[in-house]
Amino acid sequence: MSNSKSPQDSIVTMNEIVLPNDTNTLGNLMGGRLLHWMDICAAIAAQKHSNQIVVTAAVDSVSFKESIRLGDVVTLTSYVTRSFNSSMEVFIEVTAQSIPRGEIIKSNEAYYTFVALDSRHKPCQVPELIPQTEEEKLKFDGALRRRQVRLILAGKMKPEDAIELKNLFV
Amino acid sequence: MSNSKSPQDSIVTMNEIVLPNDTNTLGNLMGGRLLHWMDICAAIAAQKHSNQIVVTAAVDSVSFKESIRLGDVVTLTSYVTRSFNSSMEVFIEVTAQSIPRGEIIKSNEAYYTFVALDSRHKPCQVPELIPQTEEEKLKFDGALRRRQVRLILAGKMKPEDAIELKNLFV
Amino acid sequence: MSNSKSPQDSIVTMNEIVLPNDTNTLGNLMGGRLLHWMDICAAIAAQKHSNQIVVTAAVDSVSFKESIRLGDVVTLTSYVTRSFNSSMEVFIEVTAQSIPRGEIIKSNEAYYTFVALDSRHKPCQVPELIPQTEEEKLKFDGALRRRQVRLILAGKMKPEDAIELKNLFV
Amino acid sequence: MSNSKSPQDSIVTMNEIVLPNDTNTLGNLMGGRLLHWMDICAAIAAQKHSNQIVVTAAVDSVSFKESIRLGDVVTLTSYVTRSFNSSMEVFIEVTAQSIPRGEIIKSNEAYYTFVALDSRHKPCQVPELIPQTEEEKLKFDGALRRRQVRLILAGKMKPEDAIELKNLFV
Amino acid sequence: MSNSKSPQDSIVTMNEIVLPNDTNTLGNLMGGRLLHWMDICAAIAAQKHSNQIVVTAAVDSVSFKESIRLGDVVTLTSYVTRSFNSSMEVFIEVTAQSIPRGEIIKSNEAYYTFVALDSRHKPCQVPELIPQTEEEKLKFDGALRRRQVRLILAGKMKPEDAIELKNLFV
Amino acid sequence: MSNSKSPQDSIVTMNEIVLPNDTNTLGNLMGGRLLHWMDICAAIAAQKHSNQIVVTAAVDSVSFKESIRLGDVVTLTSYVTRSFNSSMEVFIEVTAQSIPRGEIIKSNEAYYTFVALDSRHKPCQVPELIPQTEEEKLKFDGALRRRQVRLILAGKMKPEDAIELKNLFV
Repeated sequence: MSNSKSPQDSIVTMNEIVLPNDTNTLGNLMGGRLLHWMDICAAIAAQKHSNQIVVTAAVDSVSFKESIRLGDVVTLTSYVTRSFNSSMEVFIEVTAQSIPRGEIIKSNEAYYTFVALDSRHKPCQVPELIPQTEEEKLKFDGALRRRQVRLILAGKMKPEDAIELKNLFV
Repeated sequence: MSNSKSPQDSIVTMNEIVLPNDTNTLGNLMGGRLLHWMDICAAIAAQKHSNQIVVTAAVDSVSFKESIRLGDVVTLTSYVTRSFNSSMEVFIEVTAQSIPRGEIIKSNEAYYTFVALDSRHKPCQVPELIPQTEEEKLKFDGALRRRQVRLILAGKMKPEDAIELKNLFV
Repeated sequence: MSNSKSPQDSIVTMNEIVLPNDTNTLGNLMGGRLLHWMDICAAIAAQKHSNQIVVTAAVDSVSFKESIRLGDVVTLTSYVTRSFNSSMEVFIEVTAQSIPRGEIIKSNEAYYTFVALDSRHKPCQVPELIPQTEEEKLKFDGALRRRQVRLILAGKMKPEDAIELKNLFV
Repeated sequence: MSNSKSPQDSIVTMNEIVLPNDTNTLGNLMGGRLLHWMDICAAIAAQKHSNQIVVTAAVDSVSFKESIRLGDVVTLTSYVTRSFNSSMEVFIEVTAQSIPRGEIIKSNEAYYTFVALDSRHKPCQVPELIPQTEEEKLKFDGALRRRQVRLILAGKMKPEDAIELKNLFV
Repeated sequence: MSNSKSPQDSIVTMNEIVLPNDTNTLGNLMGGRLLHWMDICAAIAAQKHSNQIVVTAAVDSVSFKESIRLGDVVTLTSYVTRSFNSSMEVFIEVTAQSIPRGEIIKSNEAYYTFVALDSRHKPCQVPELIPQTEEEKLKFDGALRRRQVRLILAGKMKPEDAIELKNLFV
Repeated sequence: MSNSKSPQDSIVTMNEIVLPNDTNTLGNLMGGRLLHWMDICAAIAAQKHSNQIVVTAAVDSVSFKESIRLGDVVTLTSYVTRSFNSSMEVFIEVTAQSIPRGEIIKSNEAYYTFVALDSRHKPCQVPELIPQTEEEKLKFDGALRRRQVRLILAGKMKPEDAIELKNLFV
């Protein structure tokens, strides 16, 4: 299939140092700054996959487990997990390394969804995503259920029509 | 109860003008910037309620329906909907007004959760929230279900123990 | 009168957290940053009143009484006090709240003046402002004297022609 | 007098390029950004004179005559005009040069007042200022009248006690 | 050797989207912004190698061949090429990808040198670097010559003592 | 010669206060931020000389001798040292003053090269530079040798053709 891509084609890594303006007065990275970095990292992955300008359509729920501190190095890694016509789901994983203690903590992970736009600001077709590894296939399958959750939360799908999702609860 | 507060005690409004660095090359506000503003607005509400420094613990899923444009005025309004020991759920609503067209669009809404920290960076007790209006009572009741969803998503609660949540699906 | 507006139609509230880059090495908010926030808050009020892009024409003298500290929450409130053809006077009031001490101080207040511009960058007519409350009427009346001070300071009016102003001094 | 300084000892020049985020959607430099730059430029002059950390105490009225455009080079020049115990009045002049048209416009000028603080955040004595040139002597003399205006506006002096000022009006 | 590291242990990748404030009025990325990103990317690599806070000691000459445009995605990759007591040489390579044209250009490359500091701000020993691949060995060998150039340029070595360097010219 | 200019015609001074976000966790100014300021200061000098938009073509090697600290006032001075068709070499000198210690240190110096672009983004002719003082003449003469180093480093000139440069080494 000529126009399909693998998750590895869109993989993006970003490193950021936590600067004073990114922290609260206790020296902890503010959650909103991290959500901003995650959006940029994920948007670049979606742009690499689609080769189009993209806009954020949805962010799935994110929880912040470990606090990240002033001066820590934050590493974000993202790639496209599945594409649907003009939209793409992107997975982002965040780790943080403290200097000089050196320990690396896994901070959190998230799924962002983007829509590709053409030059007239209209949604446009994006390449199909073909997962390769077991991990990628699991994320590809899960993407369908997560999309149903998003459609229900956005009021665009009735819970009883979310077949993949219902199978999990029953 | 002496130490309780109403949602109106924590209400916070923020206005921002969308500047060039907040937009992609099509002139649309980037989602990550908006998530950052929402976090700041919600954190101020949580600080007003708790009178403590707060850190973001979770963001519920957010969808971006309408695009916000360069030069638009974004208005964010937030208030605490319920408190749980050391954590608080905050509701945020976002609207955008285009100048000079003047029309106001409702952009989106979200729930952020914060934990209050004392000066030794430890979670500390926050005042009880007592809802007053019908709208506030609805959000107060819903907060319990949303908390169960967060605990399940974070792997801290089994789906079968989320009683309030199960009643919705069955 | 169809095209008139009240001060309440243009009221704008902004909240900002004082971050490290906003302060000097003693941890005090720098005056210039506050003047910048006041300008943005006031410009949004003038844009809401006129529904046009606006440019700052003048700032009346501002004094900074209380120091605002790193981590404080700054609240700015502004509204249009009077309109003159294409220009509008806007009143801004600034308070600051320290976390976790909780006390709110009134920091300062100011008057900014804006000119509304059309799409060809030319000054254009703005709606009349009709004050409603006693406070609003006092500010509306004072706006005429403050305008004479501005015109004298800008060399566009002779002191002896500033009738409203002279009545104060004599 | 060993501890006195001349205005030339505190002269400060700053150049800034007007970037997209400094402008409104018509491409004009926002007044608040310029007020912020003026404060930084003037604060450096006050620090050079006093060799202490300074905080902004007052800004005299400023009018914006010419619009400054995206890409223009803004030049700010400031120096201390007079010192009073722990406070200093600083004069700032702003010009802008458009590239490639090359013409230089005088944008505006202003007086900012600063207070010098010691390491315990308390106001402290600053060196006397001795004007040298005719221009400097004129600004030195005018500083007394401008100070009376500030004290009256801040409610710290009665208009009838402002002798230097009254002589101008009568 | 227990405390040695390979170049792969310090490899760092950063992605940045070129935003309006990063460009001049022709829409080209300003060189200084790129030098700033290169410094951050290289400093993170030096921190990963040394597990200490680092300060920039020198930047070798950099030339900018291809212009990078507003909206392009800039990718920076860096790793330590050799360590000398308390200092490390870091290689940085920059590419840029335009969206939606998709073409990737090699923008430029550079060598930055950092010194590791301990908590008392004093230079401290860093791990030895052992190159693995042919490319890494070439860069490791070249590091000695580049260091001699830096010492000569800084006036800390006489040209006639730079033996490795002289062999190239004669 | 009508279209020639002297170094004094392009002299530019910039002052910056080192803010928290400009420093690492030890409170030292990061090298990349200083390189960014130097680029802006030098670009303004090149714009003043050429009256055209300019892009950075090269940065010669820079070494950072003295550390600059949080709160220090950094002063940058730059001027064009020689022009070559469409390119200009600019010299930049950096000093830093600590408040309240008052001592001024010479931080470093550098040469940046810029190319002037016309409105179609094409390199265009710039005025000839005529040095006036002994210092300016020395820098004017050295510019030829530094240009040969740049051409060799960029692979555009063979070392044996760099006659001015060879005379130094032999």
